[in-house]
Amino acid sequence: MSGPVADIGLIGLAVMGQNLIMNMADHGYTVCAFNRTVSKVDAFLANEAKGKPIVGAHSVEEFVSKLKSPRRVMLLVQAGKPVDDWIETLLPLLEAGDIIIDGGNSHFPDSNRRTKYLAGKGIRFVGSGVSGGEEGARYGPSLMPGGSEEAWEHIKDIFQSIAAKSDGEACCEWVGDEGAGHYVKMVHNGIEYGDMQLICEAYDIMKRGLGMNNKEIGDVFTTWNKGVLDSFLIEITRDIMYFNDDDGTPLVEKILDQAGQKGTGKWTAVNALDLGMPVTLIAEAVLARCLSGIKEQRVTASSKLEFVGRVTSFEGDKSQFLDDLEQALYASKIISYAQGFMLMQEAAKEYNWKLNKPSIALMWRGGCIIRSVFLKDITAAYRKDSDLENLLFDDFFNKAIHKAQPGWRDVVAKAALLGIPTPAFSTALSWFDGYRTKDLPANLLQAQRDYFGAHTFKIKPEAATEKYPQGQNIHVNWTGRGGNVSASTYQA
Amino acid sequence: MSGPVADIGLIGLAVMGQNLIMNMADHGYTVCAFNRTVSKVDAFLANEAKGKPIVGAHSVEEFVSKLKSPRRVMLLVQAGKPVDDWIETLLPLLEAGDIIIDGGNSHFPDSNRRTKYLAGKGIRFVGSGVSGGEEGARYGPSLMPGGSEEAWEHIKDIFQSIAAKSDGEACCEWVGDEGAGHYVKMVHNGIEYGDMQLICEAYDIMKRGLGMNNKEIGDVFTTWNKGVLDSFLIEITRDIMYFNDDDGTPLVEKILDQAGQKGTGKWTAVNALDLGMPVTLIAEAVLARCLSGIKEQRVTASSKLEFVGRVTSFEGDKSQFLDDLEQALYASKIISYAQGFMLMQEAAKEYNWKLNKPSIALMWRGGCIIRSVFLKDITAAYRKDSDLENLLFDDFFNKAIHKAQPGWRDVVAKAALLGIPTPAFSTALSWFDGYRTKDLPANLLQAQRDYFGAHTFKIKPEAATEKYPQGQNIHVNWTGRGGNVSASTYQA
Repeated sequence: MSGPVADIGLIGLAVMGQNLIMNMADHGYTVCAFNRTVSKVDAFLANEAKGKPIVGAHSVEEFVSKLKSPRRVMLLVQAGKPVDDWIETLLPLLEAGDIIIDGGNSHFPDSNRRTKYLAGKGIRFVGSGVSGGEEGARYGPSLMPGGSEEAWEHIKDIFQSIAAKSDGEACCEWVGDEGAGHYVKMVHNGIEYGDMQLICEAYDIMKRGLGMNNKEIGDVFTTWNKGVLDSFLIEITRDIMYFNDDDGTPLVEKILDQAGQKGTGKWTAVNALDLGMPVTLIAEAVLARCLSGIKEQRVTASSKLEFVGRVTSFEGDKSQFLDDLEQALYASKIISYAQGFMLMQEAAKEYNWKLNKPSIALMWRGGCIIRSVFLKDITAAYRKDSDLENLLFDDFFNKAIHKAQPGWRDVVAKAALLGIPTPAFSTALSWFDGYRTKDLPANLLQAQRDYFGAHTFKIKPEAATEKYPQGQNIHVNWTGRGGNVSASTYQA
Repeated sequence: MSGPVADIGLIGLAVMGQNLIMNMADHGYTVCAFNRTVSKVDAFLANEAKGKPIVGAHSVEEFVSKLKSPRRVMLLVQAGKPVDDWIETLLPLLEAGDIIIDGGNSHFPDSNRRTKYLAGKGIRFVGSGVSGGEEGARYGPSLMPGGSEEAWEHIKDIFQSIAAKSDGEACCEWVGDEGAGHYVKMVHNGIEYGDMQLICEAYDIMKRGLGMNNKEIGDVFTTWNKGVLDSFLIEITRDIMYFNDDDGTPLVEKILDQAGQKGTGKWTAVNALDLGMPVTLIAEAVLARCLSGIKEQRVTASSKLEFVGRVTSFEGDKSQFLDDLEQALYASKIISYAQGFMLMQEAAKEYNWKLNKPSIALMWRGGCIIRSVFLKDITAAYRKDSDLENLLFDDFFNKAIHKAQPGWRDVVAKAALLGIPTPAFSTALSWFDGYRTKDLPANLLQAQRDYFGAHTFKIKPEAATEKYPQGQNIHVNWTGRGGNVSASTYQA
């Protein structure tokens, strides 16, 4: 076949790219496949792509010539320089109105930049989050496109057909301007880090705290997958618990406990710090991966640092505790998503994006790694009130978090007493207890800063007087020594 | 006076600058003072500086002309653009071999850049951390200089004379190349954030958990200040607890509980994430400030989110619990410093700096905000073994952390049960329990990543076989579906 036969072209034939192409082909779209190492194109056409409306190209020129106008080129290549390189390679071959879609895990500031750069050249850029792993890409991913909104009408049909469906709705909607799509995907990934860390902590508590074996733990995940925690990640954890190696023992126990962390989870944590938003659960999940990463030091430490405590083994009703554990996981998850939506809300303000919260929840409901029944409830909450200030203020989640509290507290307390690390469970509870506190001890912190650095403080509205007016920066000479100069230019 | 009479010149007459000048003058150095708003110079000379070897200038030209050669110019101006602006202003007036010292809170990458930039022009640049607030600047700060090492011999005497002394040793040593001084100051500030947060949590537990009043809490800090926690921050907290307003009630309770967070603490947390080091306590301390910052939302939340728990008030021996609380604070502090030194160790590797760990501990021992008896013990630990892999492996701290554990666990558990937020205490304990664990649950995380994204895993050395060789990236087809392509370019 020659001439412009393809509805869309895709560059990058690693697993995600191949599977997206086959997904598009299954939905009746003709796709042109290309890859820098051209032999991969031939291998793909001769195997997986055989018998499907998939064509290939042996040069970029041939690739572009096979695309219908406006040309839609989707990149599934490594984030960073490769994306810029491909853009430069494509630019001379494209025409005004053509569309470049970056489906990789690009950092949102790059997508901001590329949207503007390409708009200046008449090309519409779309940065789209793609989640769901290889299975998702093949049978229905979650797609989070953002960038030049005029591109949306030209890709909407393809994107919504190949996307996962949840109750008949496509898990793909236009997210917002510039890098908004990749931003939402970034937060999605951060939340994914959190969800995974929470499951790991539950597994660790059952394994080391309660002495359960993998079959027993798998049975618990089976039960949980029928309740409020019903989700893809709980489901695969169940499978993993049951998955035995050839010798009949669980494979997971043989896997090295060392996780990478320099990805999108880290970006979320850094962005939260930049925006000053207390997204503690994702931060702890990222740092837990860092701690897992220094395995050698942990091996040394394990011989030098012993457990000492007043309680040495689990005491109490095990079945009640397993219910508590389910509630602890559920409550911590609610906190994590509440934090994530707070962050996106702040980002929309900061970057001047209009983010549609119900749509975001919908996009995460199916197809992606964090898909769950839980996200149906979040979608419902934001559909009921799209201006909802905080997920915890929604009736459903408000009731849920109040119901979960007693068990959640007991799990965090028992883990601390038994020496099982629960960075994510604990930070979620501390955050909840801080968030619901009108008067935090930061008053002391402000007093300290004024004491040692003359940094000034403000007075509580209810304590304002003529001497200490509301809203004013006040410095007190705490020691009777020192000067009356307050620090305006120096932060200690 | 005219002609080159001054040993050093200082630009920036906010409280830190004024106090440093007077400190230098007290040690016999003649200092030339300058400020962009020149009227500040006259006011300073007519008041605080009167009778001291301090001269002023009304223009930059006059200022530079009053400095002995090699000229030493110290900037105490706001970090960022003002520092670059002053450098550009000074450059045409300086000669090869002259020295520009930035004593502000600059970000270390800026100091890296400035060192190189000025070296290219024959000017030696020093980026120096200065800590101790206004009191410290006046009577002995902690100084952490880094940059062009050839500058050190020309500023060593001045710096070491004005610096704080601890057991006769100056709390000032050459830190290392380029931005190493500002880097160490950054970590210092991060640790300061952590120390302050820990004290706030202890105060909150006593106030809301035990129902103690400020006088009683002040008495506890008085006692603690005679033990292992003996430090400047505990001392001023004691003072703050006792400090009553005109109406006889504690002033601190009237101060707004809303803290800023966009400073050096944040930089430390971001840098830790960049280097992949699990510096959890500083991260939580920064995020706790962020949470304090959204006061309005907390006020709303306080009416919508109630405490629910199986324990509703403190039960047990209060005096034992206060001892436990002291141990919890001490243990968490040990963890925070251990994390901080781990970070600096990694930074030295990453940025190719030689950092002298005993000197760093010495510099923090006196003068600065985090000065304490504790830092004497850290200095001793690193003097005994400068290659010490982790502070927790030193005999003294190893004993201390084992002794502290039971009480620490109880405090974290009780706070969780009672609904008092302890993000820093909790993360420290979780980190400790994770760090001393040979096999963390990250094996499950790696299995999940391979399951949904074909990200591969490694096998535990002790489980390696011919089928699963050690060190190799292994992909398993967990579902029986899907392909055998592993994800090399795509991270879900």
